[in-house]
Amino acid sequence: MAERVRSWWGWGWEDQALSDAQAEKLGAAVAGRLGTAVAPLRPPPSLRDLDLPSPRIQPPDSLAPILSTQPLDRAGHTYGKAYRDIVRGSYGELERPPDLVAFPRDEGDVIEILDWCSTARIAAIPYGGGSSVVGGVEWRGEGDFAGWVSIDLGRLDRVVEIDEVSRAARIQAGALGPGLEAQLRPHGLTLRHFPQSFEFSTLGGWLATRSGGHYATVYTHIDDLVESIRAVTPTGVIESRRLPGSGAGPSPDRLLLGSEGAFGIITEAWMRLQERPRFKASAGVRFREFLDGVEATRALAQSGLFPTNCRLLDPGEAASAAGLGDGSALLVLGFESADHPVDAWIGRAVELCADHGGHVPEGVTISAPATGTDGAPRDVAGREGAVGAWRNAFLRAPYGRDALVRMSIVVETFETACTWDRFPELHHRVTTTMQRSLQRICGGGWVTCRFTHVYPDGPAPYYSVLAPGRPGLEIAIWDEIKAAVSDALLDAGGTITHHHAVGRDHDLWYRRQRPDPVGHALAAAKQALDPAGVLNPGVIVPPA
Amino acid sequence: MAERVRSWWGWGWEDQALSDAQAEKLGAAVAGRLGTAVAPLRPPPSLRDLDLPSPRIQPPDSLAPILSTQPLDRAGHTYGKAYRDIVRGSYGELERPPDLVAFPRDEGDVIEILDWCSTARIAAIPYGGGSSVVGGVEWRGEGDFAGWVSIDLGRLDRVVEIDEVSRAARIQAGALGPGLEAQLRPHGLTLRHFPQSFEFSTLGGWLATRSGGHYATVYTHIDDLVESIRAVTPTGVIESRRLPGSGAGPSPDRLLLGSEGAFGIITEAWMRLQERPRFKASAGVRFREFLDGVEATRALAQSGLFPTNCRLLDPGEAASAAGLGDGSALLVLGFESADHPVDAWIGRAVELCADHGGHVPEGVTISAPATGTDGAPRDVAGREGAVGAWRNAFLRAPYGRDALVRMSIVVETFETACTWDRFPELHHRVTTTMQRSLQRICGGGWVTCRFTHVYPDGPAPYYSVLAPGRPGLEIAIWDEIKAAVSDALLDAGGTITHHHAVGRDHDLWYRRQRPDPVGHALAAAKQALDPAGVLNPGVIVPPA
Repeated sequence: MAERVRSWWGWGWEDQALSDAQAEKLGAAVAGRLGTAVAPLRPPPSLRDLDLPSPRIQPPDSLAPILSTQPLDRAGHTYGKAYRDIVRGSYGELERPPDLVAFPRDEGDVIEILDWCSTARIAAIPYGGGSSVVGGVEWRGEGDFAGWVSIDLGRLDRVVEIDEVSRAARIQAGALGPGLEAQLRPHGLTLRHFPQSFEFSTLGGWLATRSGGHYATVYTHIDDLVESIRAVTPTGVIESRRLPGSGAGPSPDRLLLGSEGAFGIITEAWMRLQERPRFKASAGVRFREFLDGVEATRALAQSGLFPTNCRLLDPGEAASAAGLGDGSALLVLGFESADHPVDAWIGRAVELCADHGGHVPEGVTISAPATGTDGAPRDVAGREGAVGAWRNAFLRAPYGRDALVRMSIVVETFETACTWDRFPELHHRVTTTMQRSLQRICGGGWVTCRFTHVYPDGPAPYYSVLAPGRPGLEIAIWDEIKAAVSDALLDAGGTITHHHAVGRDHDLWYRRQRPDPVGHALAAAKQALDPAGVLNPGVIVPPA
Repeated sequence: MAERVRSWWGWGWEDQALSDAQAEKLGAAVAGRLGTAVAPLRPPPSLRDLDLPSPRIQPPDSLAPILSTQPLDRAGHTYGKAYRDIVRGSYGELERPPDLVAFPRDEGDVIEILDWCSTARIAAIPYGGGSSVVGGVEWRGEGDFAGWVSIDLGRLDRVVEIDEVSRAARIQAGALGPGLEAQLRPHGLTLRHFPQSFEFSTLGGWLATRSGGHYATVYTHIDDLVESIRAVTPTGVIESRRLPGSGAGPSPDRLLLGSEGAFGIITEAWMRLQERPRFKASAGVRFREFLDGVEATRALAQSGLFPTNCRLLDPGEAASAAGLGDGSALLVLGFESADHPVDAWIGRAVELCADHGGHVPEGVTISAPATGTDGAPRDVAGREGAVGAWRNAFLRAPYGRDALVRMSIVVETFETACTWDRFPELHHRVTTTMQRSLQRICGGGWVTCRFTHVYPDGPAPYYSVLAPGRPGLEIAIWDEIKAAVSDALLDAGGTITHHHAVGRDHDLWYRRQRPDPVGHALAAAKQALDPAGVLNPGVIVPPA
């Protein structure tokens, strides 16, 4: 069987890309929704047509076995997977590919690469699954370097050790979502961290970027699932103690979480696991008004019921993602447990929604453990039915984006978090700013909103944008829109990112948001850990 | 009415100290329990007998109105409230009192004090309620300073702003527990952070030391209740954004949480609040074997039920704190909610305990909202009944300690956290180490254990020690025991502190536990924030 090949410019597996016919069908549907024609479908870019500049750096012999200069590797590690990355890839515009791509086999290799980079003035940019949507894995010429190496942790993909008593596992940083879950499954355990990028992102990437996952409440960020982290820095290895909780000084893990490769390369972590859920309950709650749904969601977030899923879709999302045609907002509500039936939980949650005008036309779905033919309880978290369909659509969406990019359609997302008191105003400013920008620049377009995570003190709204672009102008168009909406987010009291991270695309707003003395403290910390400043230069800390 | 006076050497209010008769009665009870005589009751120390060295530093005139050289202020700000602090105070041994005590009226005063300290080489040690049990608020001569100032934030005690929608409040750092709760109560809100020091510790102190509070699960540390923090550093003011969650770089708040005054002086914070609970359920679950109770507690911690209270007492604690005479371990289990009855929660929790041999001889107590004569729901979280008695005893315990110190009894606590797989071995090592030390050094003594907080991946055990000491040798005795048991904690995989903080007493073990590169990063961060190194020198970061 031939090994599957990852797309070097688009999402995921090459063999999963939409065919031209599928792409044109999708384009027509989007054109219909936008009420305007879209640009004709361009052919996908070809690796053979790329004229990559030659590598400028010569590695020591000892590193040769783990370094690649193959065009497929270099092209595939040039960018992440933001809209602007896919656009550039689709045009074959790879101005600054990595000179070399490193595939360390173990921590010793990582140490040797960083030593070499520090000595030879080479930028060292860690690469997990490459799914960054914020320019986190590319080099934009920051700093005075002889070249740059993309350090792909993909070979460090094992679950090394499992502690079933404490329900924790030591997992290497390069493990992709499906791979680590497959290794945990025989033990009846799961990390249950399912970002949209799940198939093509790694544990190390999740940790470095503070990624957001499955749980709508309590364990929203990967941060909350961390027991300890091990990372290689140019000045030594950091390994925090395996602890369920501690009060000994500022948390070492929290220094690495969100450091985006600027402080060190995470090589493994002890992660808190869950048993696979056996009891589930879910409901689709409809609200005539989006803001009624917001109030109900706030009540739920403040109730202490801790729903697993609490995803409020505005009418636009409810129509496009869940097929609702009546203009309702939809709250996708779910509880799950490995331990106990959750009937009481969802019962009260539905009552709270009803207090705010929510109704549940299709009723509540309760799943209890079923016994398979082998007598073992069947995991009801399966991929069948509506949930499975939604999940498949969710995971396949980025393939559709690749196709839309080939028709110059602007298709991107952005996200934030704010306190409840500020949400109505933030939402108004963001959507008005976006609609005005789209109208002026693209002649129209759509922006929709959902909540991905909710907290007692505020929601994490996630916005999707769809608009007709113009061939060749996609980046200029998006950068202008993105800047306007990022200003609006910050002005309205939001964060520039709840879980997409900072990278290079958010740096300007991150610097506005971060208190200045903290910026100086982080720069000093980086100087102590990475004196040559080779680690992901320009990310989190300004280049030296 | 005369203003109540705080004890300058012992716990809390002077008027709450045990009388000689009460002290002797308590001493006799302890002597009975220890099976040995205790030293005769020494008189309490007298402020008049102290011969404090004269202040060595002369403040600028502009600061004069907020600086005190009163002996009561200087004596009362010399130490925290660790056992070794009370002992030293009880002997009138105040070697290094603060030269001056500052009482800033506002943030401007804090800035001015830090400017002066930075310019004039004066150590600046923040003081909240002064309840540190790790030497966090005293100066031990670290660094080359002309003198030191204790900066008491007590005048910054207001709840400045309340956001009832997001359920959050902006609270000044010097607010003591009762004061801030009193200001929140009219709004039906509560922070619900109740460390044992509640009456005499402040929000700023809780934040700086990552204190542990009321909730046994989910919101265990004050960290989890923080929305944003404002702090004055010698190089500028840090104010993080009010956000329910964020993924924008390493968390600024997490850099300040646990910084123990070494990075800046926290002046206020936006804190996440709760509605006052209306529904409660509790049960006392007994286990014949402590380790069965441990297994049941682990099952609860991993169940996703999130009990509010989940305090497992070993047989020694169950006897002394809850009066159980049958050698059982006792799990104090409780659920509370402002939103919904918690019957289903406690029902399942009791089932889980039964699976591990737990029984509930007195049954489950359920409290539902009661209506007072004014028609308003009565808060069932009240101070009556068994819970109230326990809570009063808990809060009054430190007064008893002051009396025992006057009879040279060793009476102290220490605490840790570890993963579940390591707990049995850690517990065995800690208790054997302690018992051997007590036997050898004191000729006997008691050590008991309870869990204060529990996590899915491990418990936070809390140990209490009681032993006969010898007049004049108390500090030597305790320091030797403490060193042995701290070594055992670290060797067995625990943390040197789960919520008491590092201060000066834990510094040696903190440095063993903290990864070295993180130590360098924190030192560099401090250098950036506090270039003169005046802030709480020697805590968290070695003195320059």
